[in-house]
This record gives sequence, structure tokens and C-alpha cells, in this order.
Amino acid sequence: MKKLFAEFFGTYWLVFGGCGSALFAAGIPNLGIGFVGVSLAFGLTVLTMAYAVGHISGGHFNPAVSFGLWAGGRFSAKELLPYIIAQCVGAVAAAGTLYSIASGKAGFMIDNTKAGAFASNGYGAFSPDGYSMQAAFVTEFVLTLFFLLIILGATDKFANGKFAGIAIGLALTLIHLISIPITNTSVNPARSLSQAIFVGGEPLSQLWLFWVAPILGAIVAGFIYKNLLQDHSEA
Amino acid sequence: MKKLFAEFFGTYWLVFGGCGSALFAAGIPNLGIGFVGVSLAFGLTVLTMAYAVGHISGGHFNPAVSFGLWAGGRFSAKELLPYIIAQCVGAVAAAGTLYSIASGKAGFMIDNTKAGAFASNGYGAFSPDGYSMQAAFVTEFVLTLFFLLIILGATDKFANGKFAGIAIGLALTLIHLISIPITNTSVNPARSLSQAIFVGGEPLSQLWLFWVAPILGAIVAGFIYKNLLQDHSEA
Amino acid sequence: MKKLFAEFFGTYWLVFGGCGSALFAAGIPNLGIGFVGVSLAFGLTVLTMAYAVGHISGGHFNPAVSFGLWAGGRFSAKELLPYIIAQCVGAVAAAGTLYSIASGKAGFMIDNTKAGAFASNGYGAFSPDGYSMQAAFVTEFVLTLFFLLIILGATDKFANGKFAGIAIGLALTLIHLISIPITNTSVNPARSLSQAIFVGGEPLSQLWLFWVAPILGAIVAGFIYKNLLQDHSEA
Amino acid sequence: MKKLFAEFFGTYWLVFGGCGSALFAAGIPNLGIGFVGVSLAFGLTVLTMAYAVGHISGGHFNPAVSFGLWAGGRFSAKELLPYIIAQCVGAVAAAGTLYSIASGKAGFMIDNTKAGAFASNGYGAFSPDGYSMQAAFVTEFVLTLFFLLIILGATDKFANGKFAGIAIGLALTLIHLISIPITNTSVNPARSLSQAIFVGGEPLSQLWLFWVAPILGAIVAGFIYKNLLQDHSEA
Repeated sequence: MKKLFAEFFGTYWLVFGGCGSALFAAGIPNLGIGFVGVSLAFGLTVLTMAYAVGHISGGHFNPAVSFGLWAGGRFSAKELLPYIIAQCVGAVAAAGTLYSIASGKAGFMIDNTKAGAFASNGYGAFSPDGYSMQAAFVTEFVLTLFFLLIILGATDKFANGKFAGIAIGLALTLIHLISIPITNTSVNPARSLSQAIFVGGEPLSQLWLFWVAPILGAIVAGFIYKNLLQDHSEA
Repeated sequence: MKKLFAEFFGTYWLVFGGCGSALFAAGIPNLGIGFVGVSLAFGLTVLTMAYAVGHISGGHFNPAVSFGLWAGGRFSAKELLPYIIAQCVGAVAAAGTLYSIASGKAGFMIDNTKAGAFASNGYGAFSPDGYSMQAAFVTEFVLTLFFLLIILGATDKFANGKFAGIAIGLALTLIHLISIPITNTSVNPARSLSQAIFVGGEPLSQLWLFWVAPILGAIVAGFIYKNLLQDHSEA
Repeated sequence: MKKLFAEFFGTYWLVFGGCGSALFAAGIPNLGIGFVGVSLAFGLTVLTMAYAVGHISGGHFNPAVSFGLWAGGRFSAKELLPYIIAQCVGAVAAAGTLYSIASGKAGFMIDNTKAGAFASNGYGAFSPDGYSMQAAFVTEFVLTLFFLLIILGATDKFANGKFAGIAIGLALTLIHLISIPITNTSVNPARSLSQAIFVGGEPLSQLWLFWVAPILGAIVAGFIYKNLLQDHSEA
Repeated sequence: MKKLFAEFFGTYWLVFGGCGSALFAAGIPNLGIGFVGVSLAFGLTVLTMAYAVGHISGGHFNPAVSFGLWAGGRFSAKELLPYIIAQCVGAVAAAGTLYSIASGKAGFMIDNTKAGAFASNGYGAFSPDGYSMQAAFVTEFVLTLFFLLIILGATDKFANGKFAGIAIGLALTLIHLISIPITNTSVNPARSLSQAIFVGGEPLSQLWLFWVAPILGAIVAGFIYKNLLQDHSEA
């Protein structure tokens, strides 16, 4: 149960901090944090929570990560569903808090005909910089694949494991530095779900891609790591 | 006594570096550091001082942190008051130094009818981007709550404790990335006090929120951590 | 064989993340990541992969690094060629993926008369800010020399080796902060090769400099470290 | 002798990377790195070299640091002069390399009537944002004092010493985030010397402040740390 609370709080923080920085601070004229600040924010949610509750739940905060660790032989199938539910509940709770804070500014409303509304993910007309569905799929697939390679490698028993929280958190920063203009960056189905629910409309109907591509990439990473990279000898 | 000097210097540095970067460098045209730079500065004051004097005083530099650690069972009630006094004295001394440096530029004056004057915190008309008192309260409450969850988790005996200074410092960076436009970011009553004293006027009369919301969030975090997340078995 | 897969994936990630962030995110109006974001991205590709697969291959991801470690007596001559081939194949595969994603945006094409097209390196008319061939050569030579001094020093048996991934990754960030306007920053022949192949034209004919200067700088660093800095006593 | 080579290369890198990023990359329109990038660059020169050669020389790269460590009882008086000479020679060599690269761009010249020319330090008319001599002195004094408190604390035998390179490097980043607009940030007499020599004129005649204030601040820090903060019991 402690594990599920840890996943709940961790994913809450990921959505609150990552999507929150995008909503409140990215576009302020002259002083705003831009995509660099949002990238840093997403990464730091994971870095901070990895050191805070990683020793409790392993610190997934992301259904694709849970799937990838399962594919890599590091996580049991029977824990998948409870973890993913805790993650999604945390993400939706965070989006609700963000909505209530955003409503505290005069004139707030979500315009779901605009790419990236309420920090939602999208492709085609809903890609921040106009990338096609194919480009979006490849991007989310490749980025989640490498995210999981980094997670599996950095937590390998032969690796320098105490630094995993830094490597994994900053990997998420890097992923955002590359891909915000393409899909507004998901690599995390829970983070996509929570924002899409509040936005509705076309962004909600594009949600499928942000579950399929990341989870597929994560599973492929699990098989690659296990078969091409992992040293199966005793530690 | 060493502990109180450590808290004095640490909180001085937090205010001097965090508020100083905001005052001197944030708004320089074209080259200025913006909210990303200010966020980084606040976080680095804590990261640097945590490694410098954390072994002496624990490195709170913030009355809300002292309250949260007390609520979480990690800090004794009788040390609360001396710590908070040392923190507030350090913060005010830093604000005084900032004032003397700022006065060295022709035309300097504090305009206390403007949001964020002299790096003060505020809500409503004194929120940098116009957020209501309710939004400001929720924001300061939630952010301090998570700040304390990270502090309590990262310094847990089962955690990877040597990295706590990095996780905690960068958590403060993250918190600023999210919330400068909402309240100019406090999560630290001492930092709010020192700037409000020099500004006076309406920002000073809004100071109560930046004591109540962070301390409340911190105390709730202490109870959450102790009851929902902490492993109470022997190390 | 695991080592070569590790070098393949690591160099793929370096090019995909570093050049990808430059292509997709650097120049977006107002919110774009600029040279700071690109510098961070390049550094984080190495930081993340160093902790992920450094324990497998040593984490070179760069022919100049392999040459420098060989010159410093840390890498065998017979592994040089396979490592460099794995690195170049990874880099070219990443550039191909970047090309396919970039093509998913309407109106994409590579204009090889423009400095920095498709994140290529160049000098003279192909230097982003108009620096001469001599300036470009000195810059690439000096930066790669220091990159290797940092690598050799941070992985020395007397050094604080677990932090090497952080020091080396952030050294690459620093190198980009200095030199993107001069050569678009290489210090890595594989990264220059992959982009030049897709660009062709004059940038391809300038590729020689981005093999000669970095490798020369790396070899000089190996000799400097071994002869002026290294402590040859037993650990 | 190895120690002096380490100080030479370290200080070369500090000036080449820090001042180089300011000269080449800070002011590029739209994409330039600004003061955030320059701050990051200065800090990363120290972070990277601390892990690379810190085990050889202690990694001072700054006459004020050597003085402060001496005042704090961590460095012998007889090593002061050779260290400072090695640092100044390294700094001047780096400035010379920067000059030769900068000359490779058409139209380059140093205008020593402009604040911050060739990354020089200054006050009054030569302060980037017009701060008085008094403000500049206080700023350099306070910042170097805290820089040394962080160095002395983070390398204390009771501290978490392996992280000192991160804390100290990022302290220099923080210091630049605060003070570039005030003095163009020195806290390092060698870095001020090398740039002033190439600039001449009024900036050279202001050089005294950037030796006196930092060294004074460093020495005061040594006494503060030893008398108010240090635990003199056995480890």
C-alpha cells in the first residue's frame, strides 16, 4: 500500500510540476521559462521524487515505465495494474488542482481547438509545431525506448546505481528539450490522460497514440536491454 | 550555537542569492536571466549550503521546513523557536545587504504599489500574473507540502541520503519554475518576511498568507509522510 | 559485442538528442530552447548514457574520445576500429531517424547553402557566426583537448570516479555553451559525419576539419595527462 | 609540480570557458545563451575540473580561494605564491587563446570604453548595469565570502565531501546569476587580471578592486568558518 501511495504522490508531482510550469510560467512575456524551463521542471519532478520515494515504490510514476520494467524482467506482472491505477489517479488529481489554480486568474478557459491546450499532447493540427501523426508516433516510440534503456541501464546491478535518480530525471529533461514542439512531449500515458480528460475534444480523441507509442517503445526497450546489453553473470 | 550560525548564514545566502538574482539580473533586456535563472538561483542557494553546513544544522534555512521536520518526528519542538529566529535574522540581514547594493544604482527606489517589488510575495493585485488569494493559498500549500515530502523522503534512513542536498535544492528550483507568476514564490516564511519589511504597504499586509499556507502545508506533509509513506521497521 | 551495441545506442542517443533538440526546438519563436537548451541536451545525452551503459563499454560515443583514451593508455589499439565503426553507424542511424521525423512537418527541406543546416558543423561561410577556418580549428582542438583531460582525470583511479558521468556530460554542455556560434560545435567526428552525409555540398567538404582537429586535440590530451598530471604510483 | 600544472590547466579552462562563452555566445540574437548560459559555463568549468584534477591540486583555480583556504587553516602559506602564479599564467594563456579565436571573425576589436569589453570586470561607468564602486565592492566581498564558506564547509572532514565539486561549481554559477549586471562578476583575481590586461584603459585601472574585495572576503570567510562553524573534535 505504501508503494501505491508513493506512485500516487510521485505522479501527482510529475503532472503538477511539469504541466503546471507549462501552464503558469512558460509563456510569460520576456521573463517566462519557455521550453527549457518546462523541460527542466518535468525532469526535476522525477529526480526529486526518485530520491524521495524511490526506495519505497521504485519510482515509476509512469505506466510506460512499469511496462518497460516488466518487459525487462524487473517488475512483476501482477503489480502492473495497481501501479498504473495509482499513477493515473495521481495524474488526474494533479490536473484537477492545476485547473482550480488556473481558474483563479481572470479570463481563464481551456480552448480545445488550440494545440497544447492545458498542456495536452497532440499530433497533426494539435502538434505545437505541426508534425504529422507518423512523426509523432516515431518520436514518442524512440524517446520512450531510450528512456527505458536509461532506466534499465542505470539501475542495473553492475551500474553506479545511486546516481540513477539523476540520470533518469535528467533523461526526462532531455526528452522534453527534443520533443515539445513535436507532440508537447508525453512518453507517459498517465500524464497524457490527465490533461486530455480536462481538455476533451480532438486532443482527447488523439490520446490513443500517447498510450500505444510509449508503451510499445518501453516494451521493445525491455527486450533490447535484456538480450543485447545486459550482463547475465552473477554480480 | 554553531547550528544557529549555520541557519543564519544559510538563510542569508538563500535570500541574498535568490532575491538578489531576481532584483539585479532577471529583467536585464535580452541577456537577463528571467524566471529560469531566478529558479536556478534559489535552488542553488539551498543545494550549496546543504553541502556546506548541512552537517552542522541539518540545513533548514526556512521556518516551514523546521515545522515540517518537527511534524514528521525528525526535529525537537524546543529547537523550533531558536532556529526560526536565526533564519529570520539571516533573511533580514540579507535583505538589508541587497538594499544597500541596489541603492548603488542611480534611480533605485522600491515602488510598493507594484507586484513583486523588491522580490516580495503577493496575491491578487500583488500576484505577478494576477492570481487570486485562493489560488495563491492552494499553490503555496501544495508546493510546501511536496517540498517537505521530498525533504522527509530524501533524508529517510532507508533512502539514498547523500544525494538529499541535490534533490532538495533542485526541488526548490522546480517550485520556482512553477509558481513565480502566481505568488512570486515563497514556500519560506523567512524569505517573505525579509522582503515584506523593506517593501511595506499592501505586500506587508499580505505577509500572513506566506506564513500560514507554507507552515500548514509542511505540517500536513509531516503527517502524510509518517503515516502513509514511512517504513517504521529497523534500518 | 555488448560493448559495440552500447556504443551504437549511446552515439545514436547523442546525435538524436543533441542534433534533434537543435533541429526541432532551438529556434521556435519566444519559447524555443536556444543554444542553452541545445548545450544542455548534448551534455545530457552523454550524462544519461554514461550511467546507463558506461559499465558496459566505458561510454565513449565519440571517436575522438576513443583515440584520446588510447593515447592516455586507457584503451587498446585493437578496439579502436570496431568502436569507431559502431559509433559512426549509430550516429548515421540517428540522423536518418531525425530526417524521417523532420520530414513529417510540411515544407521541410535541407538548405545546404546555410550555416548549420540539419545541425551540420562548418567554418568560414558555414560557421554560424562567421568564424574563420583557423579559429574553428583552434576551437575544436582546444575544446577536445580539455574534454579529454576531464575524461582522463575524472576516471583516474585516484579520482572520485562515480561522479565521472556528471563531470563528463556537463563538460560537453559547457563546450557547446562556448562554441556553437563558432563551428556549431563538434568535438565528435561521428556526430559531424552523420549530419554532413545528409547535408552534402560544402558542409560535407568541410568535414575533414571535424575529424582532424578533435582527434588531434584528444591525442595531445592523452600525452599531457600521462606525462604532466597523472600520478603513476600504486593506488 | 603536478599541482601547478593542474592549477594552470584548471584556471585556463575557467577563463576559456567562462569568458569564452560570454564573448562568443551570450549576445547572439534570439538563440544566444545570455547571462544564464554564461553563469552555467563558469560554474561548469569549476565542476568539471574539480572532478578532473581536484585530486591532484585541490582544485583552487582562483587566488582568492587559495587565500581563503590558507585563512581557514587548510592550505600552507608557502604554497600560496606558486599556486597564484600558476593560476595567473593559466588565465592569461586562456585570454590569449580567446583573443586569437575572436580575431578570426571579421570586424573584431576590443572597445575599452564599453562596460564588460572582452569580458572584463568593472564598476561605475564600467559596471554592466551602472552600479557604484561601493556596491561593486560589497557585492564582490559578500559573494567571495560565501563562496569560501561553501568551499570550506563542503570539504570539511565531517561533510559529504564527494559532492564538493558539484556544490562548489554550482556555487560559482549561482554567484554569476546574481552579479553579472553589477561587476560582470569576478570573485577571482586571476580571471579579472587576464581580461584587464587585454583590454587596458579604465578597466585595467579598476583591477585593484577585483583583487582586494575577493581576497578580503575570502580571508574573512576563513576566520568565520574556523571560529563560528567548524567542529574541532576528532572525526
